[in-house]
Order: sequence, then structure tokens, then C-alpha cells
Amino acid sequence: MIHLKLTIAYDGTGLVGWQRQAAGTSVQALLEDALAPLEGAPVAVAGAGRTDAGVHALGQVASVTLQRDIAPQTVVRAMNMHLPAAVRVLAAEEVGPEFHARFSAVSKTYRYRIWNGEVRDPFERSFVWHIPWPALDLAAMNAAAASLVGTHDFAAFQGTGSDTRTTVRTILSSSVSRSDDRAGKPLITYDVRADGFLRSMVRSIVGTLVEVGRGRERAAWMSEVLQSRERRRAGRTAPPAGLFLVGVEYQ
Amino acid sequence: MIHLKLTIAYDGTGLVGWQRQAAGTSVQALLEDALAPLEGAPVAVAGAGRTDAGVHALGQVASVTLQRDIAPQTVVRAMNMHLPAAVRVLAAEEVGPEFHARFSAVSKTYRYRIWNGEVRDPFERSFVWHIPWPALDLAAMNAAAASLVGTHDFAAFQGTGSDTRTTVRTILSSSVSRSDDRAGKPLITYDVRADGFLRSMVRSIVGTLVEVGRGRERAAWMSEVLQSRERRRAGRTAPPAGLFLVGVEYQ
Repeated sequence: MIHLKLTIAYDGTGLVGWQRQAAGTSVQALLEDALAPLEGAPVAVAGAGRTDAGVHALGQVASVTLQRDIAPQTVVRAMNMHLPAAVRVLAAEEVGPEFHARFSAVSKTYRYRIWNGEVRDPFERSFVWHIPWPALDLAAMNAAAASLVGTHDFAAFQGTGSDTRTTVRTILSSSVSRSDDRAGKPLITYDVRADGFLRSMVRSIVGTLVEVGRGRERAAWMSEVLQSRERRRAGRTAPPAGLFLVGVEYQ
Repeated sequence: MIHLKLTIAYDGTGLVGWQRQAAGTSVQALLEDALAPLEGAPVAVAGAGRTDAGVHALGQVASVTLQRDIAPQTVVRAMNMHLPAAVRVLAAEEVGPEFHARFSAVSKTYRYRIWNGEVRDPFERSFVWHIPWPALDLAAMNAAAASLVGTHDFAAFQGTGSDTRTTVRTILSSSVSRSDDRAGKPLITYDVRADGFLRSMVRSIVGTLVEVGRGRERAAWMSEVLQSRERRRAGRTAPPAGLFLVGVEYQ
């Protein structure tokens, strides 16, 4: 028997998201189907974060227990042979039986990317929210983003269809910056780390930040929305293409 | 009447290349179809470089003459409304009637990208040639690349199906480097500028460079292949996904 921590990257375009669904291709199903031939039996994979349809991951984490003893590096190679090129296992690491990708996680980091230029780069079409005009007010957005840091009830930024017991979360960092990713490109990046995220929370925050960036609302409005705990007060939910699960942090 | 120089970027994945074909979607057909409603008549577009199926462009150039007087910026916006998101007109500039995207070009610059890491980044799957193992010898590849600079008969690097009158071209620069594109990624980049390129020339050169990088041949072998003028002496034609037409230079 071996307990593994898998680190996974995926281009979520055209996928139904992390979680197995009745129809469409999910990351979870792809991973479980890639593991089954190794194990010779069905395998269940637990993911750290349930990314929605069209959302990407640079460092999703999953935990899995195999009855067969297989070297982690062999698991990486065998899974990548089975998986489509849009989904890659970056690493596999042996962990203790108490490790659980979701429940052991201390925090998660997401990134949202906005293309704030006139013509969107064709290579970025599935990886940004295109807001062509006018230029967003970066300083106001960053002030609004910073006001979310701390332990709050984030009910105002929770998407519908959630079944969480509490809507209180702690945001550890929250900032807006010009991306240094690729020089000369009009990319704006929102980086946020929290001990947990509600459904569509990052995308709801981004939709609200953009209202500030467009000058329709002041930066201080973000705190008012937060305190209202009413979803209808916040901005629209930003499209999934711009969102990346960057990584999951453990003790 | 207005003469325009269009600068175009495209993700060539799934396209049949620049040139209009009997079947499949070409960049030329997409551009002509996007211009026809503006002109109210069929329009012919001349491209600077005939990129093959699956090859990308950061700065392809096309020339077109419209009978209707339309502001260049209007042409950009109207074309991008019609075009799929994988193809974008980046700019339109009024030029003299003597300008021709292909015949006025002084030189063209191509870039070829190789992913020399164990697991290929899922976001790079359509934009690199994956050579996982072992690490390529960058210094040897760069020495081989440098030996191509100058005016030579490049018949050894010409793909089949060409109808060019002469196979003599002048390479102005040719070098291999680690990419500074994205920090920490095992990307190797071949950059080449020439007054013109034969069919599949860059991809044939890259296939030959990789033989040197793998240590199967010495760097000096590149000159021997060049001087032989025999295609069968060179390496395989590298896959199209790694190739980008970076730009076209004019007087």
C-alpha cells in the first residue's frame, strides 16, 4: 500500500471542472481513469480544490491510496501516458496515511488574469478575461483588494448552489498588480491566498474589483459589499477562463 | 481606395496554415472572409510568409487594397469582430500602392521552441516540441546554428513540394538560447532571421540542430549537411507546433 500526494496542472478549457459530473470530462475522472489500470481496480482521488468548468490549475493537489506498491515516479509516468496533454501530473510524493489533499490543506492560492488591452492576444484567449476599454484603475483595485484581508463572513461573494456550513474564511493576502509574466503585455493579475474559498468566491471578488477598476464604485465600496453579506450587492461573477489555482499549501 | 499593411497574430493549432486550401480553415481565407463584408465584394490578401499547418504567428504581415475608403482602425475592429479568437489583427497601417507584404519584405524572423523537461507544461502543449530526455547540449547547438549565418545554398533544408527557382538564401542571425520567456521553464529557443526561407527550412534546421543537441552528431556536421545540399543528410523535420513567425522586416 502507498499513500501519494499528486501535484497536477491542467488547462481547464473544455473540461467540466475538477469534480466528476454526469456528462462531460472532469479532471477527477481523468485521474481516476489513469490510475485504474495501474491498480487493476477502481481508484478514488481526493482533490484539494473543486475548480469549476473552464478554470485552470498550475498546482492542484490530490491524494490517493494505492493497494499496490508502485514507485511515485512510475505513477507520474504511467498516468501521463494515459492522460490527455491538457492534464499533467507534475509530481508524486509518498505521504503518511493521515494526509488528505483537502482537509490537510492550510491555504490555497488563486490567480485571476485580466487582459486590459484593445486587442486580445490570440494565445491568451482561454486564459484571461478581456476588458478592452478603458484602462482599469489599478491603485483603486489594489486598495479594494487589500480591504478583504482578514477573517470575515464572505457570504456576499458566495456563488449559488453552495452547501457550506459557514461562510467565514480568512484571506491571508489579496493584491492586484500588473503582471510581470510576459513583458509588454497589458495583463492585470489578482493574487489571493486564503485558508479556504467559497464557491465562485474568487470570481465574485474579481467581478466586484472590476467595478472599482472601471470607476463605477469607490475602493471603499468593497468593504460595504463584504459587510452586507448579500450576493446581489457584489459585482458579476467573472468568467472562468481567467482563473488559475496556483497552489495548495500544507504544514 | 486605401492600401493597408495588416499585422496579424494567430494560434495555428487546427488551422491548415496561411494559404487557402481545398479543405480546412486557412488564415488567408479567414482574413479575406472578414474583409469581404467591409468591402461589399471579394477581397484578395497577400501574406508575407506561407506558414504551414499548425505553425503560429506573432507578427505575420499581409497587404490588401480596399476600393472603399475605411479608416485603418475601423478595419482592425471590424475584422476582429468577424475573426475567430485564435486569429487577431493587431494593427492596420496605410501604405503606398507599391507595398507588397511578401515582395517588399527585407527579412523575416522565426522562432522555434523546444520543451526540454520531463513533463510538458499542459499550457505549452501546442507551442513546443517536447524532447524530454536527456538535456540537450545547448553550446553545441548554438555553434551549429551560428555556422549557418551567411549566404548559402540551403537545398539540404528544403522540404518536398517546393517550386522555388533558387535555393540560395542569406541567414542574418541564427542562435540557440535558453528562453527568458517564462522563468524556471526548461525552454530552449532557436531564433533565426533571413532574407527568405525555403519550404520547411526552419523546421529542417531545427531537426538537424536537435541531432547535434542529442550528441549524435558534432556541431561541425551542420556545415557538412549544408554543403551536401542533400535533404536526406539533414535531420527530421521538426513538428509545426513549436514554430512561430515572429515578424517581418521592411525598409
